[in-house]
Amino acid sequence: MSIITLTTDFGLRDHFVGALKGKILSEYREATIIDISHHIDLFNVSEASYIIGAAYSSFPKGTIHLIGVDCELTKENRHIAMQWNDHYFICADNGILSILTQKIVPQKMVEINIHDRLPEGSVDLDVFVTVACHLARGGLLNVIGREITAIKATNELQPVPASDRNSIKGYVVYIDHFGNCVTNITQKMVKETGKGRDFEVNFSNKNIRAIKNGYSDWTVNERFSLKDYEGEKLALFNEAGFLEIAIYRSNPLTVGTARSLLGLKYRDVVNVVFKN
Amino acid sequence: MSIITLTTDFGLRDHFVGALKGKILSEYREATIIDISHHIDLFNVSEASYIIGAAYSSFPKGTIHLIGVDCELTKENRHIAMQWNDHYFICADNGILSILTQKIVPQKMVEINIHDRLPEGSVDLDVFVTVACHLARGGLLNVIGREITAIKATNELQPVPASDRNSIKGYVVYIDHFGNCVTNITQKMVKETGKGRDFEVNFSNKNIRAIKNGYSDWTVNERFSLKDYEGEKLALFNEAGFLEIAIYRSNPLTVGTARSLLGLKYRDVVNVVFKN
Amino acid sequence: MSIITLTTDFGLRDHFVGALKGKILSEYREATIIDISHHIDLFNVSEASYIIGAAYSSFPKGTIHLIGVDCELTKENRHIAMQWNDHYFICADNGILSILTQKIVPQKMVEINIHDRLPEGSVDLDVFVTVACHLARGGLLNVIGREITAIKATNELQPVPASDRNSIKGYVVYIDHFGNCVTNITQKMVKETGKGRDFEVNFSNKNIRAIKNGYSDWTVNERFSLKDYEGEKLALFNEAGFLEIAIYRSNPLTVGTARSLLGLKYRDVVNVVFKN
Repeated sequence: MSIITLTTDFGLRDHFVGALKGKILSEYREATIIDISHHIDLFNVSEASYIIGAAYSSFPKGTIHLIGVDCELTKENRHIAMQWNDHYFICADNGILSILTQKIVPQKMVEINIHDRLPEGSVDLDVFVTVACHLARGGLLNVIGREITAIKATNELQPVPASDRNSIKGYVVYIDHFGNCVTNITQKMVKETGKGRDFEVNFSNKNIRAIKNGYSDWTVNERFSLKDYEGEKLALFNEAGFLEIAIYRSNPLTVGTARSLLGLKYRDVVNVVFKN
Repeated sequence: MSIITLTTDFGLRDHFVGALKGKILSEYREATIIDISHHIDLFNVSEASYIIGAAYSSFPKGTIHLIGVDCELTKENRHIAMQWNDHYFICADNGILSILTQKIVPQKMVEINIHDRLPEGSVDLDVFVTVACHLARGGLLNVIGREITAIKATNELQPVPASDRNSIKGYVVYIDHFGNCVTNITQKMVKETGKGRDFEVNFSNKNIRAIKNGYSDWTVNERFSLKDYEGEKLALFNEAGFLEIAIYRSNPLTVGTARSLLGLKYRDVVNVVFKN
Repeated sequence: MSIITLTTDFGLRDHFVGALKGKILSEYREATIIDISHHIDLFNVSEASYIIGAAYSSFPKGTIHLIGVDCELTKENRHIAMQWNDHYFICADNGILSILTQKIVPQKMVEINIHDRLPEGSVDLDVFVTVACHLARGGLLNVIGREITAIKATNELQPVPASDRNSIKGYVVYIDHFGNCVTNITQKMVKETGKGRDFEVNFSNKNIRAIKNGYSDWTVNERFSLKDYEGEKLALFNEAGFLEIAIYRSNPLTVGTARSLLGLKYRDVVNVVFKN
């Protein structure tokens, strides 16, 4: 009865995602298969990393996350499986999981070594399907791989506190369907560096002074009228714990979005500046 | 074993829909989750209303419909749940359900009041997930809300019969994937106002004289060749019971569509004119 | 517990796919419903044919494939159901299945004849849903149709070996999400015509000399670095057994694709030329 999630760059026009599900059901008929996204930018490991990191915690412990992005087996790109925070992840060792392992030490990591045991003509995804179904049936990581102690680090720019601890420099790592711009600065990092100080968010020549704990800050707790904020720029920590720059009730087709109105784009610098 | 349907403006690129499903499965592992649409125009309550109204009746009684469009809790936008025609609906009180309640009196409506009972950091969708899973397990509406007797009306223009009962003025409310233009004039209204009279459909400077009961009118019953109609403009009542203006075998990329060929767009006026 | 797959041109914006699933679950609550694609080009029978042919074999035997493309019942377009290679297919007789039946003789084909037994107002898809659920419950084809011995052939150009058996002329039949160009030349045809001879692939004024057995050729078996191939043009047999022209790690937004870089488009001629 295990849940298997899918995150790929396959798109939904071709038969690839349907066929992948067919293969899983052929091996493990009881699987509950949930799509996280099939619209990752092609071969974009950073985006896959953000999406899986933001999604996994909504699933029950024991869920198996199959990530089909940049997953051809090569000398540099081994196939790996990892037990981490009581979830399982299956992907190529291309940096996707390093964002997770920076935060919490994995319970176990293996390099998958079952390739020679699969039928002739098997492809990379068949390897992942076999591993996912093995884990779904309660199988052990050791049976399908050789234990390893390190995985490849992401080569994305990481957020860093200034040496005087008065600011943090981060980057836009993802722009969502609403045009909201997600940075890689976490709420945890802001708390630890700021130690309770107020702060503002700067980027390009703009700044935002009011930072909210999330959309729920206005809503569940305060209950005043959100209409007052329509079209306002906001900074908040999203559900995944990352600082996000948004336009309230943004819409690419009408009022505009953080991307269109504030001119933010992928990899732009965003600073959190603490007040003394 | 309840079915929970999802209708949102979240799109499919981000992790939002996958995470929503993960939350539902975390609370109620037996749920069957079906996507109705995640491509509602952002914050477009009218479109959500049309889509849910057109889709719900294809599902078994007892199905729970979760609508994540414009759902931030505010003073004006309460969270509500409704039992109606033996289906359940969970959304914000922003007019989405008023199209349904105009047609049939609801069995029960409540303002959801469980917000204070949820864990800190919960967001609007967590409220809906909790209510949906409660209902899926057979729970009562009274346990998660306070009974109410009225909900907000839509502020969309409604179709109206002329005072002489010789015509009905309606509006284009939705344009589908095939470019077909759906109006808010129902087959029921045409029958009641027309009392059996023939009618034609007028819009801009065009009219359509042959109105069919549906695509099945040509097909299951008559069995003549549909190819004769390729590229013809048609008016018919669609499966949801609304008057729809279409081009037979329309295709945005080739022969064109009702939108492109007839110049119809969202909120354009369409008249049904009865013959005496 | 049968699996029902869906392949349509309905898109995902409207409620059509959700409603179709609701109808299936209303009739057969235990169905596992899997989307193959809902983004077939409108009324494009050839594309539907390629997609279903490429996807079906990933599913367990006994799976029921419902194809909602160009499916209005007319004099020319009967509704049919077919048992083939231990899978079931339900669609209109518009050429979609002829690619399959060219390869393997069907176990049984029927013209569906239950239209008069359905409730008034039923549409074409309701017929398919009824048949799919009947088969899913283990029902026989004879109960829902009259046995037939022939179906309509596709009117797409078919690949042909030259009279001297020194080449095969085929066509681009599908271009996927990665911009890879799939031809209708099969690996089987190349083996049978070539009888072990080496060959190259020609199109426009370009040719490709190295033909691989699939992406796995580089990966599972050889394990050298795929990065060496980034942006290279390749010819290979894809998982569905068709010759495909690709750019390694192609991306429409960055390095380009077979379509953009090589100028290939739908229905372009591609030749396999054998060496003597």
